[in-house]
Amino acid sequence: MGKVGVVMGSASDLPVVEKAIGVLKEYGVGTEVRVLSAHRCPDEAREFAASAQESGFSVLIAAAGMAAHLAGALAANTPLPVIGIPCKGPNFDGMDALLSTVQMPSGIPVATVAVDGAKNAALLAIEILALSDPALAEKLLAAREAGRQAVLKADAEVRARFQNI
Amino acid sequence: MGKVGVVMGSASDLPVVEKAIGVLKEYGVGTEVRVLSAHRCPDEAREFAASAQESGFSVLIAAAGMAAHLAGALAANTPLPVIGIPCKGPNFDGMDALLSTVQMPSGIPVATVAVDGAKNAALLAIEILALSDPALAEKLLAAREAGRQAVLKADAEVRARFQNI
Amino acid sequence: MGKVGVVMGSASDLPVVEKAIGVLKEYGVGTEVRVLSAHRCPDEAREFAASAQESGFSVLIAAAGMAAHLAGALAANTPLPVIGIPCKGPNFDGMDALLSTVQMPSGIPVATVAVDGAKNAALLAIEILALSDPALAEKLLAAREAGRQAVLKADAEVRARFQNI
Amino acid sequence: MGKVGVVMGSASDLPVVEKAIGVLKEYGVGTEVRVLSAHRCPDEAREFAASAQESGFSVLIAAAGMAAHLAGALAANTPLPVIGIPCKGPNFDGMDALLSTVQMPSGIPVATVAVDGAKNAALLAIEILALSDPALAEKLLAAREAGRQAVLKADAEVRARFQNI
Amino acid sequence: MGKVGVVMGSASDLPVVEKAIGVLKEYGVGTEVRVLSAHRCPDEAREFAASAQESGFSVLIAAAGMAAHLAGALAANTPLPVIGIPCKGPNFDGMDALLSTVQMPSGIPVATVAVDGAKNAALLAIEILALSDPALAEKLLAAREAGRQAVLKADAEVRARFQNI
Amino acid sequence: MGKVGVVMGSASDLPVVEKAIGVLKEYGVGTEVRVLSAHRCPDEAREFAASAQESGFSVLIAAAGMAAHLAGALAANTPLPVIGIPCKGPNFDGMDALLSTVQMPSGIPVATVAVDGAKNAALLAIEILALSDPALAEKLLAAREAGRQAVLKADAEVRARFQNI
Amino acid sequence: MGKVGVVMGSASDLPVVEKAIGVLKEYGVGTEVRVLSAHRCPDEAREFAASAQESGFSVLIAAAGMAAHLAGALAANTPLPVIGIPCKGPNFDGMDALLSTVQMPSGIPVATVAVDGAKNAALLAIEILALSDPALAEKLLAAREAGRQAVLKADAEVRARFQNI
Amino acid sequence: MGKVGVVMGSASDLPVVEKAIGVLKEYGVGTEVRVLSAHRCPDEAREFAASAQESGFSVLIAAAGMAAHLAGALAANTPLPVIGIPCKGPNFDGMDALLSTVQMPSGIPVATVAVDGAKNAALLAIEILALSDPALAEKLLAAREAGRQAVLKADAEVRARFQNI
Repeated sequence: MGKVGVVMGSASDLPVVEKAIGVLKEYGVGTEVRVLSAHRCPDEAREFAASAQESGFSVLIAAAGMAAHLAGALAANTPLPVIGIPCKGPNFDGMDALLSTVQMPSGIPVATVAVDGAKNAALLAIEILALSDPALAEKLLAAREAGRQAVLKADAEVRARFQNI
Repeated sequence: MGKVGVVMGSASDLPVVEKAIGVLKEYGVGTEVRVLSAHRCPDEAREFAASAQESGFSVLIAAAGMAAHLAGALAANTPLPVIGIPCKGPNFDGMDALLSTVQMPSGIPVATVAVDGAKNAALLAIEILALSDPALAEKLLAAREAGRQAVLKADAEVRARFQNI
Repeated sequence: MGKVGVVMGSASDLPVVEKAIGVLKEYGVGTEVRVLSAHRCPDEAREFAASAQESGFSVLIAAAGMAAHLAGALAANTPLPVIGIPCKGPNFDGMDALLSTVQMPSGIPVATVAVDGAKNAALLAIEILALSDPALAEKLLAAREAGRQAVLKADAEVRARFQNI
Repeated sequence: MGKVGVVMGSASDLPVVEKAIGVLKEYGVGTEVRVLSAHRCPDEAREFAASAQESGFSVLIAAAGMAAHLAGALAANTPLPVIGIPCKGPNFDGMDALLSTVQMPSGIPVATVAVDGAKNAALLAIEILALSDPALAEKLLAAREAGRQAVLKADAEVRARFQNI
Repeated sequence: MGKVGVVMGSASDLPVVEKAIGVLKEYGVGTEVRVLSAHRCPDEAREFAASAQESGFSVLIAAAGMAAHLAGALAANTPLPVIGIPCKGPNFDGMDALLSTVQMPSGIPVATVAVDGAKNAALLAIEILALSDPALAEKLLAAREAGRQAVLKADAEVRARFQNI
Repeated sequence: MGKVGVVMGSASDLPVVEKAIGVLKEYGVGTEVRVLSAHRCPDEAREFAASAQESGFSVLIAAAGMAAHLAGALAANTPLPVIGIPCKGPNFDGMDALLSTVQMPSGIPVATVAVDGAKNAALLAIEILALSDPALAEKLLAAREAGRQAVLKADAEVRARFQNI
Repeated sequence: MGKVGVVMGSASDLPVVEKAIGVLKEYGVGTEVRVLSAHRCPDEAREFAASAQESGFSVLIAAAGMAAHLAGALAANTPLPVIGIPCKGPNFDGMDALLSTVQMPSGIPVATVAVDGAKNAALLAIEILALSDPALAEKLLAAREAGRQAVLKADAEVRARFQNI
Repeated sequence: MGKVGVVMGSASDLPVVEKAIGVLKEYGVGTEVRVLSAHRCPDEAREFAASAQESGFSVLIAAAGMAAHLAGALAANTPLPVIGIPCKGPNFDGMDALLSTVQMPSGIPVATVAVDGAKNAALLAIEILALSDPALAEKLLAAREAGRQAVLKADAEVRARFQNI
C-alpha cells in the first residue's frame, strides 16, 4: 500500500496540518508533506497530482483556507481518493473553505472532513489504507478502544466527583 | 475487494441515493442497499456497522437529512471508511445535514460529499476500491476521459454557436 | 419522581455543563453526571439510555458540540424526555451543534435549549419534574420571583443613576 | 396528569400545528387548541399562560414564525414546561423563528424542536406526561416499535429491490 | 414633545445602551432609562409600555440580545414608535437578536437599527422628535455638518499623508 | 403633519410596496410614491431626499433589494426619519437587502422593518405621524383592537373546531 | 483592445451566461464563448488561461456554481483581469459559489459580481476595455443615461398612478 | 494610463487599506488616497466619482464596512471600473459588507474582492492598468513568479523538515 501525500496551500496552514502528520507518523504510514498552491504554483500542484499514483501515493490530503480550491484541483488531476481539510481563515470561521471544498460538482469527489479536522483527515486516510493492510486495521481498532477507554475513564472521574451532589 | 454498503436513513432518501446505486452498478461494484435509521432502529444500524467488515464490506455510504446522524453513527461502530451524503431536507437547503455530517469530533471521521452528492459518494467509494483493483482504476480513468470529452464537445458546440457574435 | 441524568459528550464540555449541575443541586434534584460519547463509546451511551428509565431517571440532559449527536442518540434509545444543550465548538459559534441537536426527524424529539444554555436545560428538567412534585414547583416560582426582583432592583438602580440626565 | 395546550400565533400556522394535534389525539391526551398572539393580543396570551397551571394544563406547545416570541412569552408567565415549534415563514426557511425560539436567556427555558416539527413537539409533550402515566409510556414504546418496524419493512423492500444489481 | 424611554432587557446591556443615553443627553432630550425584561418581569414590561403614552413618552428604545423579544413586547402594548437595538450576545454575533427584533409580523412594527447600534437608535428617536421640534431639527443638521467636517478633515489628513507615494 | 414619501428602487418592487401604499391610504395619510434608484439615478434620489423636508414630507419609506442602498442613500441626505424595507431578491431570501439596510454606520440611522415588511413600514410611519395627530393615534388604536379581535375570533373558531378531540 | 473570453464551467450555466454574451454583443465587443471545467478538463482550462493574453484576450469572465473554482483557476494562470460570476446551484442560493469565487487568497484576485450577475460581469469587462476605447466609453455613458431615463419614466408612471391617493 | 483612487469610508479603515496603498506604491502606480463617506459626506463622494475620469483616474478602489455602500455609490457616478473591498466590521465577520458590496443590481457593477482583501484589490487595479502598460504587465508576471518561488521554497523546507517521518 502506498504513501499518503499531505499537501497544504500555504506554509501558514502547517499548525493545522501537523496534527495530521503526527497521526500518520504514529501509525507508521509513509507520508510526504508538501506546500503547493492551486493559485500560486498551479503547474506544480497539477504535476504533483497527475503523477501521484505512479509516485507511489495512495491517498492525498489537501488543506487550504478561504476559497479553498486545493483539494478540488488535486482531485481533478488524479483518480486517487483526495481528502480535503477546510481551514479556518480570517473570516467566516471556515465556512468559505468548507463550501469551497465539499460542494464539488459531479464527477470529481473530495472527501471532506470538519473545519481544521486534520486528525480526522489522517484517520480517514489510514482507514482507506487499512483496507489492504491488516496490521494497520489492528492499530485502528486499538486506537478506537483507547479512545473508548479514555471516555470511560473521564466518565468514572466525573461520576466520582459529582457523586454526592 | 469488498462490497459497498449504501445506507439511507429513510426510504424517502431513495431518489437521492439511486444516483449512487446507479454509478456503483455501472462500475460493476458489489453493492448492498439498506434503509437503517440511527434514530428509529439504532440497534440494527449499530449491528450493521459493527459487522460490516466481516460481512464483506469495504466502504459504507450513508445518506441522511436534517440532524443527519447516520454516517456518524455508522462510523462510530466500524473502522471502515464511511462516506456521508448530507441530504437536503425541508429547511436550510441541507446546511443542517451538512454540518451534522461533516463536523465530526476527532477520532471518528466521516468522508463528506456535497449536499445530495450521491454520484460523487459512489465515485469516492470506487476510488477507494480502485486502490487495490486495477480494472476499476482503468474504468475511473476512462470515465474521467469521457467527462473531459463531454466538456470539450459542449465547448465546441458553444464556440460554434457564438462564433459570429 | 426520578433523577436527572446529565451527560456530556466529552469532559471538555464540563465548564458548560457545570452550570446545569449547579442549578439541579440548588433545587435538590437527584442528579447523576456522566461522560458518554455517541461516537467514541456508542455502546455505553446506548446502554445508559436504554436502561435509564429503570435506573430511576426521569429526564436526561445531553451536552455536545460540533456534529452533536449525543442528545439524539440518547433519545433514540429511551422514551424519557431528552434535553439537548448544543455546545459552542471551535467553529460557527455552535450553529453546527444547534442544527445537529434541534433538527431531529419525526418520531424522536430532542428538547433543545440555547447554545451553551446549560442553566436553562436544568430549569427545563426541573419544570418537568415539578409537574408531579409540588415542592419543586414552589421553588421554581420562588426563583422566578427572585429573578423578577433582581431585574426590578437593577431597574431601580439604573433609574436612579440616570435620573438627572 | 393535565392537558396539553397547543397555541399558535396565527391561524395560518394551523397546517403545521395540526400534525401535533393529530398525534395528541392519537395518544388520547387531553388537548386544548388556541390561537393567541404575543403581539396582537398580548394580554390574552399572558392570561392564558399565567392561569395555565390552574386551568389544568401540564405542558404548553407554542407554534410561531418570523420573530417567534410566542413560546417565550408563554414561558415567561408560567412555570410549566413550554415546547416551541419554530414555523417556517416567508424568509430564511425558519431560521428567524428558530433563533427567536431557542436562544432564550437564562431563567426562562423553551424546549425547542425542529422547524415545523409539530409531530415531535407533541411526542415530547407526551414523553413528559408519560413520566406519571404508565399507560401513555406503553403507547410511546409501542409507537417506537412501530416506527422501528416501518424502517425494517422499508429496509426489506429496498434490499429486495436492489438485490440483483 | 415627549420623553424617550430607553429600556434594556438586562443591566448587562448597559455598556451598549449608554451610547444611546449619551446622545440623547447631548441633544437635551428628556430621557428615562429602565431595566425591564420581557421574560423575567413581563408584567412590569407590559405595564411600562401600556402606560408609556400617558406617562409622557413619545418614543421607546429597547435593547436586548439573544431571543430579543423586548422591543416586540413593548411594541405589542403601545402605539408609540418602538426602536429596537439587537445586542450581540454570546453567539452568532447578534444575528439571533437581529432576526428576533426585525422580523416582526404584520401589525406590530419595530424600527430596527444595526447590531449594538445604540447611537443610531438615539438619533432615530431624535429625528422623530425633531419633526415637531425645530430646535432639535437644527441640532441634527448641525451634527450632520459636524460629521461631514470630521470626514473632510480625515480626508485632508490622509491625502496629505499619502501625497508623495 | 407632513406627507409620507414611499420610494422604491425599481418598479419591480411595486408588488411589495403596494401593501404600504394601501395602509397609508387606509389611514388617510398624504402619500407620494416614487421610483428612484440609488444607483441608476443617484442625483434624482439625492435631490428628492435633500429637498424632502421642504417639500412637505415628514417620513420617507424606501424599499430596495439585493445591495439595498436606497434607504441609506436617502437617509444620508435628509434628517427626516427614513424607514427601510429590505426586499427579497433572487438570492438569500432578502438577507443581502436586510444587512445592507440595517447595518448602517453610526450617524445615519435607517429604521428597518422585516424583509418585504411593507405593511409594517407604513404602520411605523403612521405611528410617527400620530405623535402629533391625535386622530391618527385613534385610528391606530382602533386597528390594534381590530387586530386583537381578529385573533380572538380565530381563537374561538379553532377552539370550537378542536373541542372534542 | 482585445477580446473578452466568456467561460462557463458547464453548458448548464449557459442560460445565466447568455445575458453577458448579449451585453457584449450589444456593445460590439469581440467575444469568445467557451465551456471549460476547472475539474473535468483542467489542462484545457489552464491552457486557455495561460495563452489568453497572446490569443488576444484582454479580460476573462468565468461563470461557475457550487465549489466554483473556475474563475480562480483561470486567474492563477493569467495576469489578465478575471471576472467571476458565482452561479446559483442546487443549494444555498449561490452562497457556496460566491464564497468560492470571492474569497481568493492574496496574490490572485478575482473581480466578483453578484450571484448570477452576468449582465454586470459584461459591463465590468466593458468598463475595463473602455479605458482605452473612447467609443466604448461613450456607449457606456449612453447606456447609463438610458438606464436613468428608464427609472425616471417608471417614476413618472408610478407618480401618476398613485397621485390621487 | 491614469491614476488609481483609493477611497475609504472612514479613517478607521486605513489599516486595511494601507495594504492596497503599499502594493500600488510597490508597482509605481500613481495613487490618490481619500476618505469619503457615502453617508456622511455624500456630495463630496458623488463629486469625486463624477469627476474621477477627468481628474485622471482609471480605476477606483473603495473600502467600507457594515452596510458598505461606498463602492456602489462611487460606481453609480462613474463609468470607470470600481473595485470594492468589503471590510470586516464589529459583526458578522464582514458578511454584511460583502453582500452590500457584491450584490449590486444590474447596470452598475462593482468588482468585489475578499473581505479585507486590500492587496488583491490593488493587484486587480494593476492588472487593469497593465492592459495598456507593458512595463506594468512585466512587473505583474515577475511578482507572480516571485509568489511561485516563495511557495516552492516553503515546499522545499517543509519536505526537508518532514522527510524522515
